[in-house]
Amino acid sequence: MTSLPTPPPVLNPARLRLIASCPDRVGIVARVATFLAERGASITEANHYHDTHSQWFFMRSEFEIGRGSPSAAEAHSPVSAAADDAALLARLAEEFRPIAEAFGMQWRITDAQQPRRVVILVSRFDHCLAHLLHRRKSGDLVFDLPCVISNHDDLRPLVEWYGVPFHHVPVPRDPAGKDAALKQTAALIDQAAPDTIVLARYMQIFPPWLCERYRDRIINIHHSFLPSFVGGRPYHQAEERGVKLIGATCHYVTEELDAGPIIEQDVVRIRHSDTIKDMMRLGKDVESAVLARGFRLHLEDRVLVHGHKTILFSE
Amino acid sequence: MTSLPTPPPVLNPARLRLIASCPDRVGIVARVATFLAERGASITEANHYHDTHSQWFFMRSEFEIGRGSPSAAEAHSPVSAAADDAALLARLAEEFRPIAEAFGMQWRITDAQQPRRVVILVSRFDHCLAHLLHRRKSGDLVFDLPCVISNHDDLRPLVEWYGVPFHHVPVPRDPAGKDAALKQTAALIDQAAPDTIVLARYMQIFPPWLCERYRDRIINIHHSFLPSFVGGRPYHQAEERGVKLIGATCHYVTEELDAGPIIEQDVVRIRHSDTIKDMMRLGKDVESAVLARGFRLHLEDRVLVHGHKTILFSE
Amino acid sequence: MTSLPTPPPVLNPARLRLIASCPDRVGIVARVATFLAERGASITEANHYHDTHSQWFFMRSEFEIGRGSPSAAEAHSPVSAAADDAALLARLAEEFRPIAEAFGMQWRITDAQQPRRVVILVSRFDHCLAHLLHRRKSGDLVFDLPCVISNHDDLRPLVEWYGVPFHHVPVPRDPAGKDAALKQTAALIDQAAPDTIVLARYMQIFPPWLCERYRDRIINIHHSFLPSFVGGRPYHQAEERGVKLIGATCHYVTEELDAGPIIEQDVVRIRHSDTIKDMMRLGKDVESAVLARGFRLHLEDRVLVHGHKTILFSE
Amino acid sequence: MTSLPTPPPVLNPARLRLIASCPDRVGIVARVATFLAERGASITEANHYHDTHSQWFFMRSEFEIGRGSPSAAEAHSPVSAAADDAALLARLAEEFRPIAEAFGMQWRITDAQQPRRVVILVSRFDHCLAHLLHRRKSGDLVFDLPCVISNHDDLRPLVEWYGVPFHHVPVPRDPAGKDAALKQTAALIDQAAPDTIVLARYMQIFPPWLCERYRDRIINIHHSFLPSFVGGRPYHQAEERGVKLIGATCHYVTEELDAGPIIEQDVVRIRHSDTIKDMMRLGKDVESAVLARGFRLHLEDRVLVHGHKTILFSE
Repeated sequence: MTSLPTPPPVLNPARLRLIASCPDRVGIVARVATFLAERGASITEANHYHDTHSQWFFMRSEFEIGRGSPSAAEAHSPVSAAADDAALLARLAEEFRPIAEAFGMQWRITDAQQPRRVVILVSRFDHCLAHLLHRRKSGDLVFDLPCVISNHDDLRPLVEWYGVPFHHVPVPRDPAGKDAALKQTAALIDQAAPDTIVLARYMQIFPPWLCERYRDRIINIHHSFLPSFVGGRPYHQAEERGVKLIGATCHYVTEELDAGPIIEQDVVRIRHSDTIKDMMRLGKDVESAVLARGFRLHLEDRVLVHGHKTILFSE
Repeated sequence: MTSLPTPPPVLNPARLRLIASCPDRVGIVARVATFLAERGASITEANHYHDTHSQWFFMRSEFEIGRGSPSAAEAHSPVSAAADDAALLARLAEEFRPIAEAFGMQWRITDAQQPRRVVILVSRFDHCLAHLLHRRKSGDLVFDLPCVISNHDDLRPLVEWYGVPFHHVPVPRDPAGKDAALKQTAALIDQAAPDTIVLARYMQIFPPWLCERYRDRIINIHHSFLPSFVGGRPYHQAEERGVKLIGATCHYVTEELDAGPIIEQDVVRIRHSDTIKDMMRLGKDVESAVLARGFRLHLEDRVLVHGHKTILFSE
Repeated sequence: MTSLPTPPPVLNPARLRLIASCPDRVGIVARVATFLAERGASITEANHYHDTHSQWFFMRSEFEIGRGSPSAAEAHSPVSAAADDAALLARLAEEFRPIAEAFGMQWRITDAQQPRRVVILVSRFDHCLAHLLHRRKSGDLVFDLPCVISNHDDLRPLVEWYGVPFHHVPVPRDPAGKDAALKQTAALIDQAAPDTIVLARYMQIFPPWLCERYRDRIINIHHSFLPSFVGGRPYHQAEERGVKLIGATCHYVTEELDAGPIIEQDVVRIRHSDTIKDMMRLGKDVESAVLARGFRLHLEDRVLVHGHKTILFSE
Repeated sequence: MTSLPTPPPVLNPARLRLIASCPDRVGIVARVATFLAERGASITEANHYHDTHSQWFFMRSEFEIGRGSPSAAEAHSPVSAAADDAALLARLAEEFRPIAEAFGMQWRITDAQQPRRVVILVSRFDHCLAHLLHRRKSGDLVFDLPCVISNHDDLRPLVEWYGVPFHHVPVPRDPAGKDAALKQTAALIDQAAPDTIVLARYMQIFPPWLCERYRDRIINIHHSFLPSFVGGRPYHQAEERGVKLIGATCHYVTEELDAGPIIEQDVVRIRHSDTIKDMMRLGKDVESAVLARGFRLHLEDRVLVHGHKTILFSE
């Protein structure tokens, strides 16, 4: 092998991601990388992980690929110069399908430059919501936000100041009323057609059918270092127990309360003189930060759910 | 008030600590500080804390006081020039008793320069023990160590290399044998007359009568972020749950397993690729560090137990 | 001593703080505590620290004292039942002055329930300002904010949404123009009569006369872990050097750029893949958090400046 | 593509690593992964990173490959059943060379199960050395240690207790004596034929020729958060400046003092009451931990040097 064909430079590239997991076997990386190379894709970041326990393989590749210019492998895989990114994505997915099926993959190809559609739900505590709105406005977190939904009307001025539609759906305590309210909430969510739902201190329990509908796409922030202090009033529990650190946990929501796959956690030190009110104040910062970090990992397709755990490709 | 009498310089001072707690009322600090000032004591560090919830008051004062030279208040409280530090301590305690009784104090006066007597118990994991032995040898932690006791003989060479007597007391599984072994262990402890007992990964449960005998003086290191993962095999529980941080907890031992007052805690981040073996390795460092920090706070009389919680004067 | 006089309960107390430092000598604590006890003050938190190197003594006491009801020591120190808190403060200060002078103290008595007057200066980066405004609105940080001043007009909508007056004072680059602009800025500050000035990413250098006028009362946030990367563009310097952590420093402003007494610092981990833009994003969170923590310590009178260093009583 | 050939199970596999970097171009991953797949290698972990700034590509793949059994690609690349791991490595390297040359790679293939040969140099502070020796003995860090070299004889008993040869080479202050001593030190190093040299608080400056001989293989621990406080006595500098955090830096040694590529850093919080002696004590723990982490990353081939910075594949 004395020389390599020099591929044509990639002009005006699209930036895409291929996420996949499957039972492990020899040749997966080679097959996928060859698929990408044949199409002139330039890999900018890739992570592969083999879980020894379950013999499962996980991968995430981010790559640049020509939009309009024909790829090096044009002969058997022409990408039309007129195709826009959605068409490019669809075409690539179509071409990748046989490989995915041969390996028994769970997989997706996503567009790194296409902001995700996100719906945020919130109750009365505004710190997580304000954190996300502020970072979205400043460009630090990029996502589309068709609406914010709340069971209280308190945060309407904040949300509307950021130019985001706000829906108020009160949730009564009686079972029938609550059921109706959650159905109305679900209808508003469905109508917004979100990719991801963020519960930014939404103090209602999602019904199982709604958890299932958006499986692995509902992100919650819990104000404790799970599995410590599950359930309500974790700061009171922490104060009662006399712990020296309090924490927050960002996790996917499942039917089982506070038990979904954990994405991110962190803690903050407290002192004997800190009251529950102090813990709430300190907790706000760690909750906001942990939610923002977990949400960012999710938006960048860096979180792969595996059973009740997560693989994080956080390079 | 135009001038203050200049107290004579304190020559060759002893360094003592007064630790006290009592129901709060006006005038405690004034009374105690006046007591110290009358004896020419120079306060080098002091902390006072009022717990609003229980209306309880806590204080710790570290002060220098003349050993041989008569104090400014010699007239009504002469400290004999010939008295050694133990006598000085006894005298001060005798003089302080009426004040303590008037306020209903729990209290003690200790000698900051007198190393505490400590017995360490350990099983097979050597990281916490090695950490303490090394820091003791290097002078970073100052305490007397009459002996180390273990239910296994594995760590004898390590302990003896540091010139410390090592006792091996196997603990059988049968109740009668276990009971006899723990009694023998207690006898060895009593014989060493320790101020403090450190369980540096000692994998046996102390019987209630032994917990009671050394109440608020038995320090344990638990290899989880309590109250998460109480009981056995916390790393397995952590792996099962998919947490992103693991921790360690240094606490006083009470009859209730893993529920004694917490002194210090910390966590370390883990990754999806970390196996239980990796967690054990990462856990070793955080366990060693947390135990050493909690133990140091205890040695310096900075931990005041209040119910099932601790006040830490960690300035 | 068989009994203690029971002081009358303190009704509707004021919460005050006494901050003092002076050359160390025996009896300071006793004298101050007796002064407070004579007036029926109940100490809720106190810290004393003796700096061995400089032989200097520092103290901070927070106490509750009766407002309207006569104190136990009414005979020689009557506090008029009609006096409001300012009068109470003035009276106490008057009475304390002889003690302070006898010991050569730098000292002040402050009202813990009286919000400080603060002026915030900012340029274009809004993260620190937004953090402070949001925490003020939610009651997590309590202070009066007569106005925000900026050399740009960009952040007016944000500030005005929070109902705070906004002054735009452009600062030209030419020396004469800059001088005039800073004088106008100073005039606006003086007019607001602030206790404290916060530079929340204000990208202009304060002239020495302005630093001097508000000595130990101007708080700046610097976007590096000082003394690393002093001067401009610290993230570029950090990227160039390949460090693994970036930080932020909250400090008092002095004539010497980036060299004033440090109040608080923290760091955040970065990865090889983090660009300068990523560092800026990560830096924003640590800057906001460090500024808020340092500012809170200042508001609570927990920061005592000693030469070019700070004593923090952060219990 | 309806079916994939099932590769024979890999029996008794060797675990190897391929580390490479080169100018970026399309197809690198595909070519390398295909190379591995052709030989039946199962990738257990892989990381790829593209540095946008320099247009350079970095990769690390860890894989299992059959030792004795013929691989799926036996026809054109038979690996003799009799070959031991060294032969396997040599063969693989030989076969990979044309690919490496075609892409202009810097590369190596290493045996993950073959402990590295390491020489540790130390002066009088024993905390980093003790940390490494203890973790090596407990199996937490795996490496061969042919000898420890010191310019003092103090730590001989510690080293010899761990069964490791100890060489004492005093380094005089006069240039000629120092030069001779460093040459003798280098001769002892060369004789031990180490892969890696660890300076575990070795207080002598390595001459440029020695830095060059073991380029990117000499690891130093510096007792400050570089680039703060370069040079000597960093704790004194930190105390002088009044910083609130002190740190440690693990870096490769280059001719330029304290300026080599940084591998790992961390910090620890200090208080106003901490003396330089306290900083030294707190610093010991962070130094030991940072050195151990950086050294582990190096041993696992997770550190790729790129100019004066490092890429860390720390999955």
